[in-house]
Amino acid sequence: MQDSLLNRKFNLSHYLNTQRNITDQALSKIIKANFSDCRLSSAMQYSLIASGKRLRPVLCMAAAETVGEINDDVVMAACAIEMIHTYSLIHDDLPAMDDDKLRRGKPTCHIQYDEATAILAGDALLTLAFEILSDQPSLPENSSIRLQVIKTIARAAGHNGMIEGQMRDIEAETAFIPLDELKKIHQLKTGALIEASVIAGAQLAGGTTESVKQLKIYAGNIGVAFQVIDDILNVEGDAAKMGKATGTDAFRNKSTYPGLLGMEKSRRFAAELINNALHALDIFGNKAIPLSALAEYIIKRER
Amino acid sequence: MQDSLLNRKFNLSHYLNTQRNITDQALSKIIKANFSDCRLSSAMQYSLIASGKRLRPVLCMAAAETVGEINDDVVMAACAIEMIHTYSLIHDDLPAMDDDKLRRGKPTCHIQYDEATAILAGDALLTLAFEILSDQPSLPENSSIRLQVIKTIARAAGHNGMIEGQMRDIEAETAFIPLDELKKIHQLKTGALIEASVIAGAQLAGGTTESVKQLKIYAGNIGVAFQVIDDILNVEGDAAKMGKATGTDAFRNKSTYPGLLGMEKSRRFAAELINNALHALDIFGNKAIPLSALAEYIIKRER
Repeated sequence: MQDSLLNRKFNLSHYLNTQRNITDQALSKIIKANFSDCRLSSAMQYSLIASGKRLRPVLCMAAAETVGEINDDVVMAACAIEMIHTYSLIHDDLPAMDDDKLRRGKPTCHIQYDEATAILAGDALLTLAFEILSDQPSLPENSSIRLQVIKTIARAAGHNGMIEGQMRDIEAETAFIPLDELKKIHQLKTGALIEASVIAGAQLAGGTTESVKQLKIYAGNIGVAFQVIDDILNVEGDAAKMGKATGTDAFRNKSTYPGLLGMEKSRRFAAELINNALHALDIFGNKAIPLSALAEYIIKRER
Repeated sequence: MQDSLLNRKFNLSHYLNTQRNITDQALSKIIKANFSDCRLSSAMQYSLIASGKRLRPVLCMAAAETVGEINDDVVMAACAIEMIHTYSLIHDDLPAMDDDKLRRGKPTCHIQYDEATAILAGDALLTLAFEILSDQPSLPENSSIRLQVIKTIARAAGHNGMIEGQMRDIEAETAFIPLDELKKIHQLKTGALIEASVIAGAQLAGGTTESVKQLKIYAGNIGVAFQVIDDILNVEGDAAKMGKATGTDAFRNKSTYPGLLGMEKSRRFAAELINNALHALDIFGNKAIPLSALAEYIIKRER
């Protein structure tokens, strides 16, 4: 009861703005320090500063607050993860992949620049993420934790995670996909990096093994929920609010949750996942208010 | 005089075989432990086990031997760098970039598979390199050195190194390039990762700041020399020995050393660079025999 009252008092929109500002300021600083006045930097910057939701950085920082405090290392990891997310969007949008021309309401990178530049800008953002992650930590004794975080993020983003998800997603475009495989694809394509964001934040803020374990359950559930809602919004969303075309999944004959389960069951499934996520936060008490508000935001979002 | 005698006794071909075997065995182990029976893994493996020269891993290990010993961490870095090199070849060969159909005597990745798979396989090899580099070091107290090595490699491979080199190389295809810019392009595109290979090997084998500095000079010179020879071989090389098409630079009207300097001056320039490289090895005495033999190999190679 008390939690619920606190939750209601918690101003998520203010929280999101604050955390996004922290992310955007840190990203600007990185851009200023690292980027030169050339085509490659310009393309990287173009995609990186497009007005994304910054969901992964916010989750990373909220996880840190759940177990400790947001420190410089946490913000750095949040930025690195956003770079990895951005690179994955640039490459997914390429003609050889999803062939999308609009992203976050703007021309995609290969439309604004060209295909070669977009491939290289994606490669460079992925590489820069690891350059930033390998900065010396604020406390030298944290080098070992930093290596763990790099490993967690690389695994999540790699061929056993996000990239395999995209590969399967492409293969699934021309074949009927049962629900289990659809879940697996989304767990890999979207869930893995969301999970890594939460784990990285928690580890860099000094989270215990037990707290990281609970946060992993939370993240696993919201990751899939996020994708279910994405599919629902693709059917009934407003293209203007989404900043990208809607109805594209049906046009492509793509397997989706609404397609396999129907709209009503998809919504119930998403709600169930969010409940599992909230339950995993129980051990943290009020410290987890931002994370629980974020879970509820995911299911209610309109873009 | 003694050095020169020792150098003559040193069996480079045997040395190269041994170091390549170490690399190939370590790569096989990584493949076995990490790859599943799916299209993405298959494409990654296809490009990774293509019979490359393994120049970067060999340089990494030879640098380690110059200042200490080859340990597990050195071999792991050598493999990671070869993965980064392989990913860069996969992406460079794409239709939107150099549009090459043949590499190391085999169809390029996007020809053997398809474009989307090739983009993702490249992304995944780059990511796997950082996953491997973030393995816990053999000595926990080496975590900080490991972070330094990740940073060195990421910088060399990224938008201030190899990727910027490829970007400028593409831009140079349609414009006249003065010699200085050509040098810069090659320093970025080829030199930076070769330099990082040598530095990583030396750092992971416990090299001092002074020895790493000298090895950096060595690597900077052989990196450019390697590219000058590559340009020369593109003009007069034997396509069968090269395992790729020759004469392509002239066909593309691409700025090259032979094109700008003429054949004779290009050869002299390469010899000068190799001399600078050898000179930088003086402080290491006989310990540097493998590295000096490698420098001489670079100028004499036929593929």
